[in-house]
Formats: sequence, C-alpha cells, structure tokens
Amino acid sequence: MESEADSGVVGPVQSLTRGLMVIRAFDETRPEMTLSEVARVTGLSRAATRRFLHTLVRLGYVWTDGRLFALTPRVLELGFSYLSSLSLPEIAQPHLERLAAQVHESVSVSVLDGDDIVYVGRVPTSRIMTVAINIGTRFPAYATSMGRVLLANLGEQELTEYLRRVRPEPLAPQTLTSVGPLRRELERIRAQGWAVVDQELEAGLRSLAAPIRDRTDSVVAAVNVSSHASRTSAEDARNELLPPLLETAAKIEADLRVAPQAGRTAR
Amino acid sequence: MESEADSGVVGPVQSLTRGLMVIRAFDETRPEMTLSEVARVTGLSRAATRRFLHTLVRLGYVWTDGRLFALTPRVLELGFSYLSSLSLPEIAQPHLERLAAQVHESVSVSVLDGDDIVYVGRVPTSRIMTVAINIGTRFPAYATSMGRVLLANLGEQELTEYLRRVRPEPLAPQTLTSVGPLRRELERIRAQGWAVVDQELEAGLRSLAAPIRDRTDSVVAAVNVSSHASRTSAEDARNELLPPLLETAAKIEADLRVAPQAGRTAR
Repeated sequence: MESEADSGVVGPVQSLTRGLMVIRAFDETRPEMTLSEVARVTGLSRAATRRFLHTLVRLGYVWTDGRLFALTPRVLELGFSYLSSLSLPEIAQPHLERLAAQVHESVSVSVLDGDDIVYVGRVPTSRIMTVAINIGTRFPAYATSMGRVLLANLGEQELTEYLRRVRPEPLAPQTLTSVGPLRRELERIRAQGWAVVDQELEAGLRSLAAPIRDRTDSVVAAVNVSSHASRTSAEDARNELLPPLLETAAKIEADLRVAPQAGRTAR
Repeated sequence: MESEADSGVVGPVQSLTRGLMVIRAFDETRPEMTLSEVARVTGLSRAATRRFLHTLVRLGYVWTDGRLFALTPRVLELGFSYLSSLSLPEIAQPHLERLAAQVHESVSVSVLDGDDIVYVGRVPTSRIMTVAINIGTRFPAYATSMGRVLLANLGEQELTEYLRRVRPEPLAPQTLTSVGPLRRELERIRAQGWAVVDQELEAGLRSLAAPIRDRTDSVVAAVNVSSHASRTSAEDARNELLPPLLETAAKIEADLRVAPQAGRTAR
C-alpha cells in the first residue's frame, strides 16, 4: 500500500516539515547515512526520503557518493540567515574580543529561545567545558548564568509559567533543582543586575552573567565570562571579573542604541 | 487566476525548495518583513508565502507579532546539524585556542564548498577585518590563504575546471586577478605546503594558511592565522607565525587520524 507521502499528494506544509526533518536527522552519531538509514531515523517512507534527499542534493545542502548522504557546509547558510538578520552578534563581537583579551577567559553572548539559552556570539580562550560550545549550542536556562539573567527579566506571568513547567535536572552536583529556591535566586538576580552560577551546569565551571538591554530597556540578551572554579575563590572571581563584565554589557548596550537596526535585536 | 503554488498542488520537492527560500529571504538588510515583503523577495504568491511562513512559525523557526515576521535562534540548529555531523571543528577547536593564545592573533579553520571557503571553526582575538567573520562566513577561495591551500590540493582536472570558470575580482589593491599567475602561485603553494596572502582580500590584512589532511592523506580543510600587515614585515610574520601554524596543523591531523569518526571530515 502506498502511503500519502509516497503518492506525492502531500501539502507544502508537510513537505517543508519533512524536508527540515531530513536535515536534522544528521548529527555527530549519524554524520553519513544511507537512504534506508535516513528513512528509519525520520520515520518517512523510502520513496519520500529519496525525494527529499535528492532535492537537498540538487539545492547543494546534501552531498552523496550514490550510496551515502551527508550534509554540506551550505547548510550553515540557513543558520547564517538568522545570524545576519540579527544586529546583536556583530555589534557585540568586538566588545567580547576586548573582554576576553582583558580577563583571559571565555566570553559569550546568548539569547533565550523557549526554555533554553542559545549562543549567538562567543570568544573562547581555553577549553574549560567538557563539551564544545559553538554558535547555536543550547543549554537549559535554569542551570546557566546567562539563562538566569534572561529568566530574571521575564514578565511576571511568563516567569510563573516557566517555573510551573520547568523540571530542573541535576546536571552537576550543585545544580539548583527546586523551583522555590530558583525563584528566590531569580528575584535576587533581578535586583542586583547580574548572576553567578557556580558548578551547576558542569563541575569545575563558574560563570558570571549580566543582561543586555535594547533601546526600549527590554533585556534581549545576556553576556557572560566563564572560568575554572579551581583558579580563584568565588569572591575573588567576582571582584576581578564583575566590573569588566558590567562595563562590557554597558558598551554593547550603548552601541545597540545607536545601531541602525537596533530594533531587531533578538527574540 | 490561481497559481500552482496557490492551489496546493505542488510537489514536495518544490515545497521544500520554496520553504528554504523563505528562510534565506531574511538577512541583515531585511531582518523583519511583512508577508507581502517576503512574497516580493522570494517571488512566491501571497498565499504560498503565508503557508510557508505559518509552517515555519509552527515549527519554531520564525517568530511573528501578527504583522512582522523574523527568524528565531532555532534556525541555527539547522546549521548546527552540519557542524555536529563534522568531527573536524570539535577536534580542531582546542588546537585553535592554543595557537591563538600563543601568537595573539585570530585563527580559523575552513573547508571548500564549490568556489568558496566556508569558516567552520574560529578563535578571534581582535577585530582586524572590517566585516565580521562567523562560522558559516564565505569568501571566494582565490583571494584567501586558506582557499589557495585548498585549491592547490585539488585534483588536476578539478583545478583546471576551476581556473577556467573563475573570474577573480580585485577585492583589495593587491588581489591577484590573472589566472596565469594564480595557477603558478597555487603550484608553489602545493610544493611548499603553505600559503601567504598579503592584502589581497582586504587592505591591511595578511594571512598564512596550511592544509589539514585526513587519514587517507586528502586535504580536507585549511587552518590560518591572520594579522595586521602593518604590525610586522611579511618576512617577520612568516618566521614568527609559520612554525606554530604548521605545528598546529600537524596536531589537528594527528587527532583526526585517531578520531572515531575520522572518515567524515568535510566535503
């Protein structure tokens, strides 16, 4: 029996959805796949899978040797459409570079997307995370300093809804997993204007973050500095890193206010 | 009269193609658009545009306030599918970080895609380019040190075809725009094992690049160091930067050889 997808009678909405599923089927565990493997991962029929793969090959997003399929660098252009539509990463980048050179630590900018933070700018100085962080990397907001800054500045109703649905997991020995203490911490962050997260996302990692506001005074992003927890005490880290971090946030905000496209910062 | 796209009778191939066109319609000059603007940029009918935009909103790739549409950070995940399917950026990253810390200059890794290089890894140290470079940024291969390393290691037939179709543009005062001298320079690069480009992509920018080979000895990527042309003479820059660059390339190659997915490096 032929399925709907096989017959070709399928709306544009489903076709786009399925085509994007095919792109997302590839990852570090499945960098190259046969047609059958892509069909298995996506749950699409072989006929539909073949059609989408060959469309993506023709558009230059997928490479094939006739048997195996893999994504090409052109896929990055899709993400690049987002990055270049956003004035924030380009405006923030020189400030991130200066801060990283000054404090000799990795510096990042991220925005909130649903319940996650997503990195949109980063200047790494040394590998302190066990996982690589790239533009596009996501982490749950509750366990990160940038996420807490962004959550702390949500509207009251949005925050209440977030805290109702979130189920914080113990990602590291010190992760705050109770919603009550998390809410109190967010209130403190909102009042003091910055956040510190000490080994809650990963053991050995300490991170300080500050909000970035657009010209309407809405918090649209967060900037952070992360460092080895073993290098200095939490208090020394705060004394040393917080002033240049807050200064960097202020400089990014000043540039955002005069940018021609300051209205489009992040969503 | 209703067009084919409006009637909904359109194959999955066209739907996927058009949906990706809608994503790519957004950029720095058009970060937010109304439905009519997206229709004008893509050349699609208003009905088709509405369907694709609302599909992308439902999938979380596009945001709307009811009138304006913009991409969301989720679009980055599409590019991230490519990056995470590639073992090279993750393997190269700690080596790039060490090299950048050692020489205090920006360091990058890129691969060839058609006639362009595409950045897949980068550790910036200071803003020396007038344009921001991100993962996914493209430049014409002929004008960049990494592009020349990658072109120099193409097969004879591929290189001849490239040189037949390429029309080098004078991007900076010193860009090599004649194909004969470009071919001779590529032969020299192949023999010596590295490339230098002095103010051919942008005035003031000098860049040294070396090839990265996979376990089959094929050149799959290039690594570079870029510096201000004004800081040192070309000779000093070469004496100072070339040895650590070649050492970094060798270390990345050694790690690629033992990586579990070394077979999938780049295409």
